[in-house]
Amino acid sequence: MASTSSLTLSQALLARAISHHHGSNPSSSDCVVSLSPHSIPTFSGLKSSQSKPSTRVLHRRRKFAESNCQIRASVTGTPTAVKTTEISLVEKSVNTIRFLAIDAVEKANSGHPGLPMGCAPMGHILYDEIMRYNPKNPNWFNRDRFVLSAGHGCMLQYALLHLAGYDSVKEEDLKEFRQWGSKTPGHPENFETPGCEVTTGPLGQGIANAVGLALAEKHLAARFNKPDNEIVDHYTYAILGDGCQMEGISNEACSLAGHWGLGKLIAFYDDNHISIDGDTQIAFTETVETRFEGLGWHVILVKNGNTGYDEIRAAIEEAKTVKDKPTLIKVTTTIGFGSPNKANSYSVHGSALGAKEVDATRKNLGWPYEPFHVPEDVKKHWSRHVPNGAALEAAWNAKFAEYGKKYKDEYAELKSIISGELPAGWDKALPTYTPESPADATRNLSQQCLNALAKVLPGFLGGSADLASSNMTLLKMFGDFQKNTPEERNVRFGVREHGMGAISNGIARHSPGLIPYCATFFVFTDYMRAAIRISALSESGVIYVMTHDSIGLGEDGPTHQPIEHLASFRAMPNILMLRPADGNETAGAYKVAVLNRKRPSILALSRQKLPNLPGTSVEGVEKGGYTITDNSSGNKPDVILIGTGSELEIAAKAAEELRKEGKAVRVVSFVSWELFHEQSDAYKESVLPAAVSARVSIEAGSTFGWEKIIGSKGKAIGIDRFGASAPAGRIYKEYGLTAEAVIAAAKELI
Amino acid sequence: MASTSSLTLSQALLARAISHHHGSNPSSSDCVVSLSPHSIPTFSGLKSSQSKPSTRVLHRRRKFAESNCQIRASVTGTPTAVKTTEISLVEKSVNTIRFLAIDAVEKANSGHPGLPMGCAPMGHILYDEIMRYNPKNPNWFNRDRFVLSAGHGCMLQYALLHLAGYDSVKEEDLKEFRQWGSKTPGHPENFETPGCEVTTGPLGQGIANAVGLALAEKHLAARFNKPDNEIVDHYTYAILGDGCQMEGISNEACSLAGHWGLGKLIAFYDDNHISIDGDTQIAFTETVETRFEGLGWHVILVKNGNTGYDEIRAAIEEAKTVKDKPTLIKVTTTIGFGSPNKANSYSVHGSALGAKEVDATRKNLGWPYEPFHVPEDVKKHWSRHVPNGAALEAAWNAKFAEYGKKYKDEYAELKSIISGELPAGWDKALPTYTPESPADATRNLSQQCLNALAKVLPGFLGGSADLASSNMTLLKMFGDFQKNTPEERNVRFGVREHGMGAISNGIARHSPGLIPYCATFFVFTDYMRAAIRISALSESGVIYVMTHDSIGLGEDGPTHQPIEHLASFRAMPNILMLRPADGNETAGAYKVAVLNRKRPSILALSRQKLPNLPGTSVEGVEKGGYTITDNSSGNKPDVILIGTGSELEIAAKAAEELRKEGKAVRVVSFVSWELFHEQSDAYKESVLPAAVSARVSIEAGSTFGWEKIIGSKGKAIGIDRFGASAPAGRIYKEYGLTAEAVIAAAKELI
Repeated sequence: MASTSSLTLSQALLARAISHHHGSNPSSSDCVVSLSPHSIPTFSGLKSSQSKPSTRVLHRRRKFAESNCQIRASVTGTPTAVKTTEISLVEKSVNTIRFLAIDAVEKANSGHPGLPMGCAPMGHILYDEIMRYNPKNPNWFNRDRFVLSAGHGCMLQYALLHLAGYDSVKEEDLKEFRQWGSKTPGHPENFETPGCEVTTGPLGQGIANAVGLALAEKHLAARFNKPDNEIVDHYTYAILGDGCQMEGISNEACSLAGHWGLGKLIAFYDDNHISIDGDTQIAFTETVETRFEGLGWHVILVKNGNTGYDEIRAAIEEAKTVKDKPTLIKVTTTIGFGSPNKANSYSVHGSALGAKEVDATRKNLGWPYEPFHVPEDVKKHWSRHVPNGAALEAAWNAKFAEYGKKYKDEYAELKSIISGELPAGWDKALPTYTPESPADATRNLSQQCLNALAKVLPGFLGGSADLASSNMTLLKMFGDFQKNTPEERNVRFGVREHGMGAISNGIARHSPGLIPYCATFFVFTDYMRAAIRISALSESGVIYVMTHDSIGLGEDGPTHQPIEHLASFRAMPNILMLRPADGNETAGAYKVAVLNRKRPSILALSRQKLPNLPGTSVEGVEKGGYTITDNSSGNKPDVILIGTGSELEIAAKAAEELRKEGKAVRVVSFVSWELFHEQSDAYKESVLPAAVSARVSIEAGSTFGWEKIIGSKGKAIGIDRFGASAPAGRIYKEYGLTAEAVIAAAKELI
Repeated sequence: MASTSSLTLSQALLARAISHHHGSNPSSSDCVVSLSPHSIPTFSGLKSSQSKPSTRVLHRRRKFAESNCQIRASVTGTPTAVKTTEISLVEKSVNTIRFLAIDAVEKANSGHPGLPMGCAPMGHILYDEIMRYNPKNPNWFNRDRFVLSAGHGCMLQYALLHLAGYDSVKEEDLKEFRQWGSKTPGHPENFETPGCEVTTGPLGQGIANAVGLALAEKHLAARFNKPDNEIVDHYTYAILGDGCQMEGISNEACSLAGHWGLGKLIAFYDDNHISIDGDTQIAFTETVETRFEGLGWHVILVKNGNTGYDEIRAAIEEAKTVKDKPTLIKVTTTIGFGSPNKANSYSVHGSALGAKEVDATRKNLGWPYEPFHVPEDVKKHWSRHVPNGAALEAAWNAKFAEYGKKYKDEYAELKSIISGELPAGWDKALPTYTPESPADATRNLSQQCLNALAKVLPGFLGGSADLASSNMTLLKMFGDFQKNTPEERNVRFGVREHGMGAISNGIARHSPGLIPYCATFFVFTDYMRAAIRISALSESGVIYVMTHDSIGLGEDGPTHQPIEHLASFRAMPNILMLRPADGNETAGAYKVAVLNRKRPSILALSRQKLPNLPGTSVEGVEKGGYTITDNSSGNKPDVILIGTGSELEIAAKAAEELRKEGKAVRVVSFVSWELFHEQSDAYKESVLPAAVSARVSIEAGSTFGWEKIIGSKGKAIGIDRFGASAPAGRIYKEYGLTAEAVIAAAKELI
């Protein structure tokens, strides 16, 4: 069994892949479709600069594949004989993109040149011919959106932004690729580089973001467009690679895109047969186009993504005619196109080419320029995008002014969505409670807040991953966002948590005033954690409504009971983990969540009923931790009892008993550690005086991290094992989450 | 926009769904395919017990759908007129399963009756007619495996285990469904209920586990079967629902199953059109069969899953003839079949029927028995499985003994895989290092360990999610596990982290001696966290090889740099989070990981080179935290410096400097908090004496939780924000992860 080395197998598979990908009865043009100029229908600018890679790549392929292809003898030539003036401007622009990527990766000695070299043609066509944008205002509302889901190829996007005239990517930024403090990090980051819509790199996130962007466009267009004024009208484009296609999240999001009929979503699938481990044949032999047909997409094949400009153009044109389905354009490309020795291999995926191969590629593509040089004619050609973009925006601004005259209410709403300015007094809509209000589950109280907010926040929309009736997330005044009712605001995500999170990120990133919420059981944040992390990193203020937040859900058992989840999010940067205890705290949590537009919030909510406690408040929640009751004086209680969410009630009960015995007891609600951490030292001391080391915490979750709050002498009551299937009350008792346990712990410390 | 209530929309969609699902030109039998006895080809045992649900359900459908169906006048009758003796035994057995589920959920007043009522026919056929198992030895190696991926329907499986004679589910266990300490928890848990192969409930996990089980069978069969003795030979069956189908993980796993050609995997898709939020039309309109054809599966449609027994039987037979592809049998069923008022609605999905509806269902299906009663003839019919199962196992044991006589080496290997007994002295194979050994990345040192273990552990296999060359996980002595080379041990998962984790769980659960490892970048544990949690919960000793474990990966930037991940796993129950610092610690981590067969391990490994430090050891790792160097005496150092992984080197450097200044400094490696926690108090005191409060920790990750180790007076140096894209050294410096920072912190404390 040791005789088959994996290298050998990979080679064999590569061979099979190549013969497969090029058809079982290959003609010359089929076989070398990406290489022979004669197979390109209308574009005539190609000269012998194409010839060198053709022959070399084919030699490599033949070595592996014993291909049946007939290689045209005419496809030869020496690059040195080519004058660059003979190369058409499109070709030259495409090569400019390739070399900006090659040079930046080379200078950084780090990065992914392969994708930009292969995808430069579609990138060029999109940014130079198709997309509507204004380089000097990357936030122009009605711009076409572009998402590079295969984020490792970010030099493609940086090169395009540079050529298009965005201020975020100047020549010096390209030279600082992947360096400390630069605007050109190793993967696209919206918060670093204006012009990048979203943050990608973790595969599959980007295409799901694109679905969210397209959803936002469809929703806003349906709500605001008028027969005489289609004020919302843009496309969403994406490029995804083999890696994105393999990730489950992309199937989730694309299934929804098909279901919703997002006709203005056009995704390019860069089908280059290579992923990091080698040929995709070793792990990815499904028929992607068949799967996408099953998902309800329109699918177009572009056989020659390397030089088939007209094929690409025609595909986009066709995609635009299909209004009721998203389109996948499967574009067959050669990764690292132009590199004579590394094209079509994994070695060009994620490493610099190396000086020698950069030289060889320059020779091969007939590129005589210095690193980072943009030829004057290319520069001149692209320079029109700055005035054109300004004109596009000006025309739209005029149109919007016109809109404002005729449709005042809609104008005000849309303007608030565009600007992100919250309507004055919006938070007054949030419900208030007293201790006399009936006990209720925080998931139900959350529903009251959601419905209150939907009335006052024009950009508020969202839904659940098939748990609307458990998460209590339906907006009663609205119907379902569906293919034919896109103006509605209840989004039905199906059982697709990961896709839901990333789609919500896309919605949030579409416009500052769109405030998406999404919901599932708290334990299933595990399914969507990668998307939640991107919310935090990309400063997208998604609101995560996470119910059934502990063993308190009872019988469903340990697979459904979160334990470590609170701790796991408290450890994550730039996210608010909120665990409200009752009505006022739930309202407070929503106030905080809505205000934090650059920081996502997770609300952990109970399935079970909880009383409205004396002393809780919205203002308290805003401080993260605060005293709800206290019978001590001089900031010197005998003991401090600290609880969160459903356990605050237990702490309050224990305090009552202890006070009956004459103890001075403070009860502190610790609804958000992050917010408490941001308070002044004086405030912190007023809640948790350093002199009081007798502290008991109770929370139906891991005790991990609680030492920070209770100190080394305190006692943390929590759960450091998995849950159990039984009625909730029984589990609480068996797990020792009781007032008695709190009292006993307190007495040990006093 | 407020006029369309979501309820109304849902109703409209339900109507559309029903007419769609039953064809655009429905004939009578198409329309009522699940209900009319005349549409059932060969099964003749159905009497008028079927009639009542037919008419009632049809009435409900007509109300919504204005169906064009012709309802047969003959389909009427009164259930009271039916004698149960007229109902065939199969039908009676199927109804027994239905009522065991109904009664258990009713008694618990909690659970999911809908799926068991709809899937009872396929469940019956599998456990009574098709599957080979031994009820008295649920661990018999060569048994057919069954996975209920739609785990909420667990009463289906408990009822089947009960009828088949498993000791784990007696009548009293059924009566204790979802109660404290019972063997019948709210979702299937392998560690609670022998006979349940895996732990399901979180949707999509089960089908991926099933792929792992089928992979294990194919691998072991290829390795051990001989032309005259096919000693490994079983099928893997699964039932998955709409929810499983929507989850991305199932697409990942099923894409791999198709790629690998797992012909002995047969999955039933319970196509009942209902999920928690109502009709699947609101979020799930893709064509599943087309998608599965794209994934390379054989697809069979069973139109009548409610009573079409012969259809189901024929589908299984057909599936078995297809050897080179897994099979999806899409079975259209009615959720809650038999309930006159709740069938085909979400209300029967996840709640008890209620006493009134239980009565109505009893009348409707002609079921005169007490709750939990198994009719004598049904009991008698099923009683053959105990002797039959014993005979099956005995025959196999004889065959295995025969095998052992002819194929001694293979017998010993397979026996070790079956028993889980590790070969004596296996750990001697692990490499050892001295401070003179060249500096190396722990990912490379990990590769040395993996390759050493592969030589001595017959059940060791695994791979990476398309990062084998970055994670350094290839076993050099083996080739790739592929469709036509299943005897090999390098598994190529593609970019499918979530599927990878769950498939690894399936492999681990197949046989005690199978030790799967799987790999990706540490940050992408976010993609697979739900599967990792199931490893921990289900006591599956998967080894997670997670490289690029900090900002030390450099230029790829914050999307790729883990921060909160160490803390997030330290908070998770029953998992070992190991972060080795050098060669000896990496070997120690593998020793611990291999020994912990009921607890998964995560190894966080560096991309960057690290020196082999004096004082590190395998034995130290086994204790979780230990002193590597110390120049103090009497257990009273001036300061304790604590590091993990790549930062232990920094702590050691800082100690050197401090010692030069005359300080007594202890350096402690804290490679696994969980293991340290398990040590005696005396040992803990010997490493971290209570009297020494001057403690400084350094770790390139969140400081969350470190107070537990360093106490309230200690200082934690770490990272509480996202990373950055730049060369690693620069980020370390900018983020203050330096020996200078440790020295400064120490001096403040001394």
